[in-house]
Amino acid sequence: MEVVKEAKTMQDISESLRRTGKIITLVPTMGVLHQGHLKLMEEAKNAGDILVISIFVNPTQFGPNEDYERYPRAFENDKKLAEGIGVDYIFYPSVEEMYPKNFSTYVTVEEYSKKLCGKSRPTHFRGVTTIVAKLFNIIKPHKAFFGWKDAQQLIIIKKMVKDLNMDVEVIGIEIIREPDGLALSSRNEYLSKEERKQALSLSSSLRGVKELVINGVVDTAIIKRRIVDELMLMNLIKIDYVEIVVMTNLDPINQIKEDTLIAIAVWIGKTRLIDNIIIRKEDLPK
Amino acid sequence: MEVVKEAKTMQDISESLRRTGKIITLVPTMGVLHQGHLKLMEEAKNAGDILVISIFVNPTQFGPNEDYERYPRAFENDKKLAEGIGVDYIFYPSVEEMYPKNFSTYVTVEEYSKKLCGKSRPTHFRGVTTIVAKLFNIIKPHKAFFGWKDAQQLIIIKKMVKDLNMDVEVIGIEIIREPDGLALSSRNEYLSKEERKQALSLSSSLRGVKELVINGVVDTAIIKRRIVDELMLMNLIKIDYVEIVVMTNLDPINQIKEDTLIAIAVWIGKTRLIDNIIIRKEDLPK
Repeated sequence: MEVVKEAKTMQDISESLRRTGKIITLVPTMGVLHQGHLKLMEEAKNAGDILVISIFVNPTQFGPNEDYERYPRAFENDKKLAEGIGVDYIFYPSVEEMYPKNFSTYVTVEEYSKKLCGKSRPTHFRGVTTIVAKLFNIIKPHKAFFGWKDAQQLIIIKKMVKDLNMDVEVIGIEIIREPDGLALSSRNEYLSKEERKQALSLSSSLRGVKELVINGVVDTAIIKRRIVDELMLMNLIKIDYVEIVVMTNLDPINQIKEDTLIAIAVWIGKTRLIDNIIIRKEDLPK
Repeated sequence: MEVVKEAKTMQDISESLRRTGKIITLVPTMGVLHQGHLKLMEEAKNAGDILVISIFVNPTQFGPNEDYERYPRAFENDKKLAEGIGVDYIFYPSVEEMYPKNFSTYVTVEEYSKKLCGKSRPTHFRGVTTIVAKLFNIIKPHKAFFGWKDAQQLIIIKKMVKDLNMDVEVIGIEIIREPDGLALSSRNEYLSKEERKQALSLSSSLRGVKELVINGVVDTAIIKRRIVDELMLMNLIKIDYVEIVVMTNLDPINQIKEDTLIAIAVWIGKTRLIDNIIIRKEDLPK
């Protein structure tokens, strides 16, 4: 396994690998690797010849009052975990390498970036699409793997790839959860014991409404109300949004149909958590 | 020579060519090829193994009241000219192929896009960088050739390539002029006989100030005044701007130094024309 810090070096390695016919797979991360990342890495390992992961806490996707500074870092441990999976290259650039002085170019998926999380994080997705575009140009992957945990991010990245004709297959991997239901996230580290307990209401309310849908309730106002009621029982939780939207364009809908995204964002103390479920055709009443 | 209309087909061709080690060069155009384009194509032909040109009148770089509809098209003649130069592929997509319904993603070089032409054409460069990013992803060139005629465009594309780590070498080719000095442009077709005559004041005023610089005048206020005075003698000309800026970042300066761009944009009747000169180190008084 090789750690590469310079973009140009990584690009030359990737270009040479492509020339020899190797299939490059990529898992972009912000480090502090957990089971969710490891699952992405395993899937990516099986889908190609050369597995690259990137570890970069991307400043442009954090707002001015967000947790960029205190976002956890754990490179030495990440390296061991990556080695264990059989990662071939870790691309691990500095902030100056990725955003030199006078950096000016951004990629934006308009409209999509203003919805859901975009309402309270107006520059977040611009930062995500810009760094992912850069990583794709540097690492030149054939396939890139992202988690459905960040559903809006994945939908926006797929849209960017399609609109800009990027020659990358974007693959979504389902959410990995703790045994008690909490979706894995590097930000779970921030939670106190009591906060963590209350955070379970995100996954439990989503499980609850999935049951409702299976049993024939498809009115989104009812489902939304049910989630909000459950979250409001938790005194440490402040709801950012509960939204029920079409997966392809993130537009809200009145009746659940196939490929509907039910997404939640809340504040628990100083920590912002998100979770979601997707309703597929097979979940709907016949 | 092959004409390719589908993005995916072109991308597959280019990927295969890269795999065999061929060097792909690209000249993006909006068609109606003139000597300026042919010069770019000749340079590109000599710089690689496979020459691709694109012909696409890009709607996103035209403003709502600009000349998108009446912009000239001449595909059959362009094809003959391309054949003569030894072009290998013409990428010639439809508008629907490049901008399908619900297209949402844009690449923007902020700041740079608001200066000079960006003041009167606020969405122009966003359209240019978006289409060039798409063409680079589809055609995967090693080298791409642009004319210095569109100096701000070239500077912005170079900046985009650097910021987004695109693996493309961007090469600028000097302006080609008519014997009487008029810079070649597809828009020259719009000019009446009298308008064309007055249009010569662009190149002649630029030649005049180059003489001034060579003779030691480096105060940009004086140089600007000299150009404005000459243009104002022409009753059909309305000045959009005369600007003297640093090439690397398009910031205005008070004293001419090496790599200074002197750029003009005017309206002559309904036609907008631009021209420029670059002051290099060797032009400056010792």
